[in-house]
Order: sequence, then structure tokens, then C-alpha cells
Amino acid sequence: MTLISSTLPAVLSPVVTPFDANGIPDKAKLTRHCQWLQKNGVGMAVFGTNSEANSMSVGERLDILETLVANGLSPSQMMPGTGACAVTDAITLTKAAVTAGCAGTLMLPPFYYKDVSDDGLFAYFAKVIEGVADSRLQIYIYNIPPITKIGFSLALIERLIDAYPKTVVGMKDSSGDWSYTESVLKACAPKGFRIYAGTESFLLRNMRAGGAGCISATTNVNPAAIADLAKNWQAADADAKQASLDTIRMIFQTRPMIPAMKAAIAHYSKDPSWAAVRPPLTALNAAQKEDLIAALDQAHFAMPGL
Amino acid sequence: MTLISSTLPAVLSPVVTPFDANGIPDKAKLTRHCQWLQKNGVGMAVFGTNSEANSMSVGERLDILETLVANGLSPSQMMPGTGACAVTDAITLTKAAVTAGCAGTLMLPPFYYKDVSDDGLFAYFAKVIEGVADSRLQIYIYNIPPITKIGFSLALIERLIDAYPKTVVGMKDSSGDWSYTESVLKACAPKGFRIYAGTESFLLRNMRAGGAGCISATTNVNPAAIADLAKNWQAADADAKQASLDTIRMIFQTRPMIPAMKAAIAHYSKDPSWAAVRPPLTALNAAQKEDLIAALDQAHFAMPGL
Repeated sequence: MTLISSTLPAVLSPVVTPFDANGIPDKAKLTRHCQWLQKNGVGMAVFGTNSEANSMSVGERLDILETLVANGLSPSQMMPGTGACAVTDAITLTKAAVTAGCAGTLMLPPFYYKDVSDDGLFAYFAKVIEGVADSRLQIYIYNIPPITKIGFSLALIERLIDAYPKTVVGMKDSSGDWSYTESVLKACAPKGFRIYAGTESFLLRNMRAGGAGCISATTNVNPAAIADLAKNWQAADADAKQASLDTIRMIFQTRPMIPAMKAAIAHYSKDPSWAAVRPPLTALNAAQKEDLIAALDQAHFAMPGL
Repeated sequence: MTLISSTLPAVLSPVVTPFDANGIPDKAKLTRHCQWLQKNGVGMAVFGTNSEANSMSVGERLDILETLVANGLSPSQMMPGTGACAVTDAITLTKAAVTAGCAGTLMLPPFYYKDVSDDGLFAYFAKVIEGVADSRLQIYIYNIPPITKIGFSLALIERLIDAYPKTVVGMKDSSGDWSYTESVLKACAPKGFRIYAGTESFLLRNMRAGGAGCISATTNVNPAAIADLAKNWQAADADAKQASLDTIRMIFQTRPMIPAMKAAIAHYSKDPSWAAVRPPLTALNAAQKEDLIAALDQAHFAMPGL
């Protein structure tokens, strides 16, 4: 694999999706949140786990992507999630992302069946790549076994890189298992494979080991500080900055993450409708919300400019 | 809940989906397979796990359902799978099934997120039922934790029945855990809740405990014998018949089930294209296929009239 250049930043956000009173994605509000993230130095991995992407139909996702680009958000800063259980859906979503000019796509494996083979997973990526048939396509593998219950063996990753060196260019690793991340970094980073940690808790370690950055839930609420560490990871105060990120991270991570982030955005933007989630998620109740805000206040947390 | 009448038979098949050389669902071939199943006394639970339903887009599924009904297959014998990760997709699919006159729908929980709450799962079913808003709707809960990694607590099932007594009328239990099935039978069957076992291995036990029948993979290859036991479960030779079903079941169950059933249909119908699957599944290789057919020959297995 040759080193593939990318316009994507070191930190991207799996952007949370606001829903209106009827449960419909609120594209105007989402646009404003993306603008705020971009202003804070963070790219847009829309349609991630934290975006409730799989709780939206393919049509809803296509419509959102088109609107965000039409509203002036930069596709050069975008890595939309385009993986799906149905390879036909994955092709549709990926084609739309490439056509919109997105700098990358983040691809879940097909996650319905379990105990699937490396051959079957390889065939899925091959079918998407051949179905999209566009040299601009840059795929980032999305490894999140706590949710999908499907892992990517190092052998499979290397097989994909070998078969599609200009297309399979990186990975988001949300395994939560640093020794696994490290094994992928060791084998693939020297070839130019861009590995994003799935949480800012591993950001500094990942940068020091040759990783590309992080794509993390909490960038939705704490973008500037996370982007700052990614930029200044070689500075003397990097470990102190990492510790400070971890404090905020833990407040969200020890609660239902997506509802908690939405509750925080609702609170700091003074817009209660931000708290809405789609089933099977449930919004925080009043006591949980109060407890969250108390913890954030104690940490002197703020979301300036929201 | 009052006893809800149904036109559905005691045995339904999660009908396997044939794909053509381009990987597109072959509707003519699927129609012929459904006709053969119907002739053998088995109803059509199209879009099940064994149908590779989640490997097809919503549009592909809507098109197939419309074609099957247009081709004269009876919606009174149909229980299509309509559950999806996105509640909007589940509403679209369920609405189409009801409009087509299907006697029931089989509903997976939203299966992307894990460790979801009963409240979140209840909200999903509630949204579908309220979104479809049709008194003809009859939902069967689809419990298949080995695949979804999401279970249905007895409390949740009872809450759904209490809230929607005329709509949540039954269940397919593919937990593989007979003690769980028994607990649901004991609590809910006396109220008229129709419980289908997820395998014919539990068919006789299920009938004796007040269950409705079974919805099982292997009905795709062994429909007549399974339907016969469901009909004659009170006969003296029922245990012998169950043992005979189990022998065939084990041949498939000890192999990758879906590829093995498709390989068997390809073999007995002399149509090799039947073997095709969509990723992440992979077709049996030559040695696996030979081994399967040898085992079936030894059991004097046949698929008459295919």
C-alpha cells in the first residue's frame, strides 16, 4: 500500500442526530451542531453508532447527507458511516458518500449474522468496492465488537489492504482493547494505514504509536479540547491534557452515553428537544439528568459557543 | 387478551431466498419454492433469518412480497419478517405486509444496540403498532438471542400483550432454551398467545405444552414430514415421527444451516444456482457439499415434487 493522502482531520465526531417532536431527524439543528463541531476543529463522522444511524432508514440518511452538504458543510471533513447488514444498502450509502465528495466512509461489517467467516466479511467489502466502482472511494473499517459481536482479525485487515491498497485506507477501532489496537498499529501503520482510536481515552497512546487520531462519542460535547490534544500530542503537557479529557469522558461513559450526550447538549443549548432519542434507546429521566449536570458542573464543564 | 383467530398453519417456513447470477433475488424461483412449500402444508414466514432478509434492502423485500402475492400465493398463509433496526423501516415493512393481507408479521427487536432496556424495546413495538395503525395487524414477537444478542423478558412480553391484546398475538422462540419457552407457554398460552418453536426439534414438546407449532429452517427441505407431525401430534406414533424429524434436522444443524439447505435444494432440483448466498454468508465448498449429500443419501432423504 502506498501512503494515501487525506483531507480528514485527526479528530472526528460521530455526530449525534437531533429528532423533532415527531421523531423525524431535525436537519436544521443537525447542521448547526456540525457547524459548531467544525468550528472546534472536529470532522464529521456522521451516521456512526452515536448518531443512531442504524435507527434511521437508508432514505433518511441519504436525505441528511445531501442537506448537510447543501448547507455548506465540507465533505472533505466528512467520513459518513455507510456499512449495513444488506450489501445492497451498503453500496447505495457508499456511492452517495463518494458522489457527495466525502473524504472517507466508515464501514461496519454486516452485523446481523454471528460467527461469520473472514471469507464472508471479505466478500462483503469486495462487493461494496466493486459495486461502487469509484477510484475516489476511501474506506475505513469500523471495528466495534461490543456492539456488532463481530471482530476483524488482523489477517482479514491485511487481506483487505493487500487486495484494495488504494481503497481500504484505515480503521476506527472501538474494540476497547488496546492490545488489539496495538497489534493493528504495529502491522499496518507503517504501510500508511490510518488507525483512529474509538475513544479519546486512547488518543495520546494512539498518536504515540503512529495512529491517526480518534473518532469518539464525546467529541460531540468536548470537541475543542480533544482536537487540541491531537494537535499538540508531542507537547510537554500532553499527559496532563489526556488526564483532563479522561475526567470528562468518564462522566459520560459511566452513563448511557448517547442519551447523556444529548441531555448535555439540551441543557447547555437550552433546547430540551435535543434530548430525544429513537427506540430502542431511551432518554435520561429527570433524576439521571440532574445527576449528570451536577457532575458536569463539578468538573467546570461548559460547551462555549453552542 | 381474547383468543385471536388466525388463518396461519401450525408450521411455517422461513423461506430461503434464491439469488440469480448477479446476486439479485430470483422472484420466479422463489415463487416456485413457496408453491412447493404451500403444497406440502407449510405456510410462508418469508423474510426470516434463513431468508437472509437482513441481507436485503427494504426495497428488495417490498418488491418480493408484492410479487409473491401477485403470483397467487396466499397472504392468509404468510407471516413475513418486518422487524428492523430502524423503527421507520419496521413501520414501512409492517404496513406493506398488512396492506397485502398477510395474516401476521414476525418482528425482530431493533438489533444494533446491545444491553437495551425493556422500556426501549416496548417503545419500539409501540411506535410500530401506532405507526401502522391498522386493526388487522397481528404481530408475532421474534426472539432469537443467539443472533440478535437481545432477549425478551417474560415481563416485557406480558406488558406488550396487556397493552396491545389484539395485536401482539404470538411469538416465535428461537432461543434454543426449552425452559425459557416453557415459561412463556405457561404464562401466556392460556391467554391465547400463540407460541411457535423456532425448530421442529421442539415441535412435539411445544404442541403438548399448548404451543401453536413451529417456524423452522428445515421446513425448507423437509416440509411434509414436519407438517404431518404438527397435524398428528396426538397420534400414538408421534414420538417416532419426532425422532425421524430430528435425524434430518441434525444433518443440517451440524453444518452452516442456510448454505447447507440451499445446497440441498440445488442438488435435488438440479439447479446449481440455488446455492448462492449473500455475504457475509458463504456457499458450501465442493467437499462440504459432497459430504452433505452423502449424509442425506444415507438417511434416504428426498425432496419429492421439488
